[in-house]
Amino acid sequence: MSVRIHPTALVESDEVGSGSSIWAFVHVMKGAQLGSNVNVGDHAFIEAGAIVGNNVTIKNQVLIWEGVQIEDNCFIGPRATFTNDRNPRSPRMPISKERYRDKVNWLARTIVREGSSIGAAATICPGIELGAYCMIAAGAVVTGNVPPFALMMGVPAKHVADVCACGQRLPGRYDETDCKYCGTTAAERLMSLSPALKNH
Amino acid sequence: MSVRIHPTALVESDEVGSGSSIWAFVHVMKGAQLGSNVNVGDHAFIEAGAIVGNNVTIKNQVLIWEGVQIEDNCFIGPRATFTNDRNPRSPRMPISKERYRDKVNWLARTIVREGSSIGAAATICPGIELGAYCMIAAGAVVTGNVPPFALMMGVPAKHVADVCACGQRLPGRYDETDCKYCGTTAAERLMSLSPALKNH
Amino acid sequence: MSVRIHPTALVESDEVGSGSSIWAFVHVMKGAQLGSNVNVGDHAFIEAGAIVGNNVTIKNQVLIWEGVQIEDNCFIGPRATFTNDRNPRSPRMPISKERYRDKVNWLARTIVREGSSIGAAATICPGIELGAYCMIAAGAVVTGNVPPFALMMGVPAKHVADVCACGQRLPGRYDETDCKYCGTTAAERLMSLSPALKNH
Repeated sequence: MSVRIHPTALVESDEVGSGSSIWAFVHVMKGAQLGSNVNVGDHAFIEAGAIVGNNVTIKNQVLIWEGVQIEDNCFIGPRATFTNDRNPRSPRMPISKERYRDKVNWLARTIVREGSSIGAAATICPGIELGAYCMIAAGAVVTGNVPPFALMMGVPAKHVADVCACGQRLPGRYDETDCKYCGTTAAERLMSLSPALKNH
Repeated sequence: MSVRIHPTALVESDEVGSGSSIWAFVHVMKGAQLGSNVNVGDHAFIEAGAIVGNNVTIKNQVLIWEGVQIEDNCFIGPRATFTNDRNPRSPRMPISKERYRDKVNWLARTIVREGSSIGAAATICPGIELGAYCMIAAGAVVTGNVPPFALMMGVPAKHVADVCACGQRLPGRYDETDCKYCGTTAAERLMSLSPALKNH
Repeated sequence: MSVRIHPTALVESDEVGSGSSIWAFVHVMKGAQLGSNVNVGDHAFIEAGAIVGNNVTIKNQVLIWEGVQIEDNCFIGPRATFTNDRNPRSPRMPISKERYRDKVNWLARTIVREGSSIGAAATICPGIELGAYCMIAAGAVVTGNVPPFALMMGVPAKHVADVCACGQRLPGRYDETDCKYCGTTAAERLMSLSPALKNH
């Protein structure tokens, strides 16, 4: 399958996977990597150095910067905002020029693990890992690492419950509770995590 | 009066009322309904299935989805974000495909009653009714139904005061207090609500 | 140096300073003033009447309205939202038309002093002064005046610490503490403020 690109979109990257769709007024810079079957909504922007996996849904106006990696099957809600600098100043200000000369001085990396959902207008602070299948509520501001399957709400975002891979809220912990909606068991959920993540 | 459409805007809908203006880089999908004398600011997006009344002001970058209805005379501030799914996952993830096959499984509807104002960068969670002439403060995250004439602030948004139809804050309840700015009385305010809303 | 304008950008202003760059899908209205060496990211919007100084970095999707002035060397993070009306209503609603006939009735001015940083997705309420070199955290909602060098976080934003001109957090007050990162002393910091600001 080919890539579908709206006539008004700017797709400068040659690393967009098959079956992906890029909608109106989107800008994908050269050097951005997108997997297959990715959907990018209107007015989104994906910077050189950003990495997006397969089957990811990127809704309208999402901004994905260098230093941000999004694994397979994630949902990035409308107007979700990533960041990559903990102490931003204008690089054009004389006192800041030295700091911005080398990325090691400012670039903080973020990774969004498989199957995560980021709600509408949520903000992800720099240098954070979002655990697999977590769900960030609309309007939340995430200021630290997020465990897998965690539902995070508020400013700053707090861990208020766990969710299943299917998205439904669980009455208990993700590693102890079966899902009555999709039938996934706690054991299956644990097996779906990679070994590295199980220790979170 | 005809519809004014900026040369860079994409207006695929043929249901835009007379006297409306659609500004730069806006996308109005086929199947979106807009009333007369509506103003849509730059980079806004209005999805198929969205319904917008007359005399509505839609500021820049507003996102209006299927399932969202906005009645007459509303102000939708810059970057206001609507939502329509309580448990979003990527529809491209295998475990989610079944749920997204039928809208009854995920589509939560929102209605914004006549004369309401939604402040800049506010987020409206799914499945909510915003009462007539309410005012949502800038940056608020609205998580439940809003009474008419209510001023809502914060994350999650709390009802902190009442406002008049003219937008000014009232020193008391909307159904007991006259407005010293525009002269509207509490009795007139109650009459302006439809019978269904008076019972809120 | 000339101004660099992306082919998809709309730059109607003839007051953009030399060395500035305007990127994709940006709209700069006639009557907006931009200084020299300003960078404006994709999908930003700068309204007639907005004033932007020199060496300012304006990231993607920023909205700058009439009544907003940004001094030299500021960083305006992605999706930062300004506002200019404390009681917004649709100007198309009959009861509001009179109020919107004259700007004196609604226009609230905001000034962002030299060297300030506004984090991603932060919202600036109307009629506010942001003190020189302040830093607004990502996702904050600023509801009142901000002292110089103040780090503001949360909704509503609170003053949680002071920062240096270089952007690093200080262990004490800006007017009493030297910076171990860039070497700026408290005395130098005070001298960098204009006399009017020292009294804040």
